[in-house]
Amino acid sequence: MQQATRRLRVETGGRGFYEITASVADFLRSARIDTGLLTVFCRHTSASLSITENADPNVLRDLETFLARIAPEGAAYVHDDEGPDDMPAHIRAALTQTQLSIPVIGGAAALGTWQGVFLLEHRRHPHRRDIVLHLIGE
Amino acid sequence: MQQATRRLRVETGGRGFYEITASVADFLRSARIDTGLLTVFCRHTSASLSITENADPNVLRDLETFLARIAPEGAAYVHDDEGPDDMPAHIRAALTQTQLSIPVIGGAAALGTWQGVFLLEHRRHPHRRDIVLHLIGE
Amino acid sequence: MQQATRRLRVETGGRGFYEITASVADFLRSARIDTGLLTVFCRHTSASLSITENADPNVLRDLETFLARIAPEGAAYVHDDEGPDDMPAHIRAALTQTQLSIPVIGGAAALGTWQGVFLLEHRRHPHRRDIVLHLIGE
Repeated sequence: MQQATRRLRVETGGRGFYEITASVADFLRSARIDTGLLTVFCRHTSASLSITENADPNVLRDLETFLARIAPEGAAYVHDDEGPDDMPAHIRAALTQTQLSIPVIGGAAALGTWQGVFLLEHRRHPHRRDIVLHLIGE
Repeated sequence: MQQATRRLRVETGGRGFYEITASVADFLRSARIDTGLLTVFCRHTSASLSITENADPNVLRDLETFLARIAPEGAAYVHDDEGPDDMPAHIRAALTQTQLSIPVIGGAAALGTWQGVFLLEHRRHPHRRDIVLHLIGE
Repeated sequence: MQQATRRLRVETGGRGFYEITASVADFLRSARIDTGLLTVFCRHTSASLSITENADPNVLRDLETFLARIAPEGAAYVHDDEGPDDMPAHIRAALTQTQLSIPVIGGAAALGTWQGVFLLEHRRHPHRRDIVLHLIGE
């Protein structure tokens, strides 16, 4: 049984969905583990992770519209030190995932046909985001 | 240290909660691992997973009502190729879980008394859903 | 490769966010594993877990306000045997996490600077909550 870890840096261009499926696959290829468990961990509270459809970009647009409606910038937040997008970002992160684990079978993540792994940037401005990848298996 | 994997197929009858706790327990029994980590992974973006109460079915009814209210079919979605239940399904999946990991102690999942593992079908029509189970431990 | 488990008991004072980052760190210290995967599992359906900012308590206040708005006590729930906070608690739990897994690097959880691990008590009254910690690595 072996382990591998990698720190992944994603430079976001502000609010939006950034697909990292290829970076995750690259990590798996280099680790040369046939069967195991891959974990993707986001080290932020105003960015998060989600597995969603990677075929039609309109899905991402609708998800963004949904998140903007459910956690609007205009609400009366107590915490607004960093601007009107600050607290909505924490809410969006709480509603989605900070961590995803995916079984690895035959050296690849056992994702479904339409599943992509996305980093969700919830702040308006560009940020440098740190993701930790961990793999255990053999 | 050992690993085991299984592909679980669930035939859903359309939108609703389908308990898979027994199938997960069956996998654990056959794997004969005393202490470890079990991962349940859903290979879809319009179906998902959740651990919730399995005692009173009214909890599932109220959760369904909540999800229908928060992600209504009537909203103006850009992505609606597969019908009015298409985009709400992706939103429901994003708000719940694609993956669940549960510690295994004494050969069984360390679930609480009232916890059941559910597959959530978010589309109106019946679907065949693929779940991957992964176990590591000894 | 080794494993360690611990049962963590948290006495909550009713609805609110209870930080358990220090208890998790204590478990990691005693386990003496350098690289691995830590899993935190909540054995309840009316309490849950979340990783969010642990610097400004106003973030927790705003998250509480958000959850109270999205899952209000006044709605017409079918399941209300245990009072008006019963079903909202299940909804809040479904929208947040029952389980969190965090890579361990250099003997510590790879949390970001502002990330804390929280138990979310969703019921009004104090409860005794069980959390299971699992660690695998070497």
